[in-house]
Amino acid sequence: MRIPNHIGVIPDGNRRWSVNKGFSKEKGYNSGLLPGLMLFQLCQKVGVKELTYYGFTTDNTKRPKVQREAFTKACVEAVEMLSHENADLLVVGNNKSPMFPKELLPYTTRKTFGKGGMKVNFLVNYGWEWDLGNLMENDSNNRKLITNCLKTNDISRVDLIIRWGGRRRLSGFLPVQSIYSDFYVIDDYWPEFNKNHFYEALNWYNSQDITLGG
Amino acid sequence: MRIPNHIGVIPDGNRRWSVNKGFSKEKGYNSGLLPGLMLFQLCQKVGVKELTYYGFTTDNTKRPKVQREAFTKACVEAVEMLSHENADLLVVGNNKSPMFPKELLPYTTRKTFGKGGMKVNFLVNYGWEWDLGNLMENDSNNRKLITNCLKTNDISRVDLIIRWGGRRRLSGFLPVQSIYSDFYVIDDYWPEFNKNHFYEALNWYNSQDITLGG
Repeated sequence: MRIPNHIGVIPDGNRRWSVNKGFSKEKGYNSGLLPGLMLFQLCQKVGVKELTYYGFTTDNTKRPKVQREAFTKACVEAVEMLSHENADLLVVGNNKSPMFPKELLPYTTRKTFGKGGMKVNFLVNYGWEWDLGNLMENDSNNRKLITNCLKTNDISRVDLIIRWGGRRRLSGFLPVQSIYSDFYVIDDYWPEFNKNHFYEALNWYNSQDITLGG
Repeated sequence: MRIPNHIGVIPDGNRRWSVNKGFSKEKGYNSGLLPGLMLFQLCQKVGVKELTYYGFTTDNTKRPKVQREAFTKACVEAVEMLSHENADLLVVGNNKSPMFPKELLPYTTRKTFGKGGMKVNFLVNYGWEWDLGNLMENDSNNRKLITNCLKTNDISRVDLIIRWGGRRRLSGFLPVQSIYSDFYVIDDYWPEFNKNHFYEALNWYNSQDITLGG
């Protein structure tokens, strides 16, 4: 079976899940923590080399304060949880903004935790405009030069993006690294994660051709 | 019904369709011309304001010469066909490259044909690296500044992308304008286009929420 080198994860649907359960919207984020850990362990098991979680974006921070605080807290806890695993961990996002949680500043250079192994990237206060904002005038059409200028230049091309919660859009997730990503959407909400979702996505990916436009 | 302002079209599957019919791969492109016209007319009818066709990319030009010549010819004919309609037409792509067909140079500034109306963009020898290659050093995270520096700055945000041919990826289609695009995939090949595909995509789009991350 052809395993993607790099999987991107858009863990959407926390708020809708929460409302369906009769809770207020912000209560759902905490229920995304365990899925995040389960997914990490599954990726480790099948030999994925890099995993990128979409934490929250600069657009998401425009939501009501109670939600913003809840998803920020969940991201902090998720990163701390992953730091107890064997991983090469990096938190990436606009950390000069007050929206970036101080607790995550120590993670903004890549560090090896445990025995290391899989590269794990966690996007926190990420914005496509932040990512592209540093591109230099070059007019060279040189891909290497462009990708080197990305603020996310330590994150490689994404092979497979899995989005939970049914929406079929990228919502600004790494626009350059996702140029040729295969995009798999799971209708269940992220807190409803189960390992079959992951294996379904891998099976589907295995059936795709990789042409990169050729 | 909520009609998207701007629809992006990825007309994929011409080669697979051709091979299934017992022809060689490059024969399929010509059968994409009529679908292109039908789609234009449907968009006009329901009041779409802007329509962008994914002609061919810089990556596509690495294919065998016989294919390259066939898809280039089909793009030239498609643009000439659209110039007989009522449209504000623009061909966008790297026209300094020998891969750009000379016949389309007159279309590289937007012109009104007939009574004008819908903005129609046709991407020819388009590459994401070409599009982003002119971004200026600004480090301002200012979206307006970034989008102004895109080579495709005359193309607005895409609301709905429809891809024919079953592949679930963007393949470099306008990475910035497609940040929040809803992405609808039709399994049938582009030469098999029929108007129900279009109405299915519109119905699906109508059922989506538009949050832009909020």
